[in-house]
Amino acid sequence: MSDRGEGRRPEDTSGTVPDILRVVDLALLGLGQIGGSIARAALASGVARRVVAWTPSGRGPAAAEADGIVATTSPVDAVAGAELVVLAAPPLACLALLEELAGPLRASLANDAVITDVASTKAAILGRARELGLRFVGGHPMAGRESSGYESADPDLARDRPWIVVPADPADAAAIERVEALAAGCGARPIRMTAAEHDAATALISHAPLVVSAALVEAAAERPDWPAAEAIAAGGWAGMTRLARGDPAMGAGILATNAGPTAAALRALRAALDDWIDALDGAPSGETLAHRLERARHRLGAGER
Amino acid sequence: MSDRGEGRRPEDTSGTVPDILRVVDLALLGLGQIGGSIARAALASGVARRVVAWTPSGRGPAAAEADGIVATTSPVDAVAGAELVVLAAPPLACLALLEELAGPLRASLANDAVITDVASTKAAILGRARELGLRFVGGHPMAGRESSGYESADPDLARDRPWIVVPADPADAAAIERVEALAAGCGARPIRMTAAEHDAATALISHAPLVVSAALVEAAAERPDWPAAEAIAAGGWAGMTRLARGDPAMGAGILATNAGPTAAALRALRAALDDWIDALDGAPSGETLAHRLERARHRLGAGER
Repeated sequence: MSDRGEGRRPEDTSGTVPDILRVVDLALLGLGQIGGSIARAALASGVARRVVAWTPSGRGPAAAEADGIVATTSPVDAVAGAELVVLAAPPLACLALLEELAGPLRASLANDAVITDVASTKAAILGRARELGLRFVGGHPMAGRESSGYESADPDLARDRPWIVVPADPADAAAIERVEALAAGCGARPIRMTAAEHDAATALISHAPLVVSAALVEAAAERPDWPAAEAIAAGGWAGMTRLARGDPAMGAGILATNAGPTAAALRALRAALDDWIDALDGAPSGETLAHRLERARHRLGAGER
Repeated sequence: MSDRGEGRRPEDTSGTVPDILRVVDLALLGLGQIGGSIARAALASGVARRVVAWTPSGRGPAAAEADGIVATTSPVDAVAGAELVVLAAPPLACLALLEELAGPLRASLANDAVITDVASTKAAILGRARELGLRFVGGHPMAGRESSGYESADPDLARDRPWIVVPADPADAAAIERVEALAAGCGARPIRMTAAEHDAATALISHAPLVVSAALVEAAAERPDWPAAEAIAAGGWAGMTRLARGDPAMGAGILATNAGPTAAALRALRAALDDWIDALDGAPSGETLAHRLERARHRLGAGER
């Protein structure tokens, strides 16, 4: 066993969803790439008998009608009668939607309706839902492409991908099962985590890397060598700065709602970088450096699928 | 004008090569992806009338004969009669080949033969060539793919890519022109830089990012959250750790021969990361973070091609 064996692996709960929960009336608040993909997959798999979708712009739903999605420009009409409401929006927009659901939309919401989301951070959203007394289960399909909008929706987007499910505290078994049925209907693998586990894990693999990507650009652009470097940059640079080319508002909402775990992951990275700087200052041999790179590659390879 | 306008842009010298220098007998020491691509492009463009290639294993040349490349297992036979010798090998192997050319191979080398290379670092190699009294011009085609070996050679590999040309000090105009003719024959854009300019620029855009990629893995793998994170990692993580999946020996040779500029680039990155950590510790607003990410994206966009 390696020294990494002590960490707890998340529980894979695919295949545990009773059939009786599989058909619901689904409401989507937001219908971009992720929301559109869920809507289409839910209809195609039969997990939803009806999907009503609202977006702020009203554009997504209009384009989606040909795919069998009921479009509405009224959030009241979207949530009315829904058994499952999916907030298909970035983290800060999810927080605002929770306020709406607990406020102006509360009267339109069925008493037993379950609310879930697909945002990239969980603790802030779960905390707000709890404060507001909503029947909420957090969700995060680990899928997405660089394109955006309903035009890039794909019913297979989440297929074979993990879909993190974060129960409220105390857990609501029926609500969890409804969300896991949706995930399974999209072909994803539902995996239960706590909000803290989710946010620490995504800080490591996604949110700290986003900051690193932006910091690489910031650091390079200040250097006197930058114009010459910029002119010859190739695939390696493009790959390491790809995350920094993403939507700033989306990234900012993620970092604002997961600041602590992201800062912790960045501190760990800084320690590793300090060690590399020390090593490079010592005019290291090729053998020493190759051993260290080999070790990193080995650790990575263990997690490759 | 932006505040980045003061930096010096490298000189683009494409189109300045006299026709009379365009046809040479070419020797390649090493025939992997880059060497094989150069050999095939040089024959296809007519910049080489003959290509003789040697590799340590002898495997590459055998596979290349169908492409018109003369294969030899003898480095003496490869360099004999060559007007241009290309070291198509990683940095540390280039240093060893320079010793061979100044030693056992010196008698086989024509007096006016020019030696060049394609390695990712330049100061160490130029310095050694000068110490050894070789007629050397540094070269670095900014091209390459993740695959390796002669099987992945492509005559269009360097097409429309920058090909850094690093003159010796003092500069040898005829030698430079011979190397620039090779670059042009491969469809690349020859760009002259000093070794220090090259190494600082590639440290920024390539060698520091390699270290960052490995450091991300090292830092993550030590965290208690790693098993959960590893299980849900998606495209962003794969992209940021792609460089760490590369050949450790190749990466080590690059870092060993460009340690100083890479450490300098990493110090600049560390300062940017410290600033991000401070910002995240201060519970920043989405607006503040979006502004910073937008600024990084803007700086990057200016250099996108």
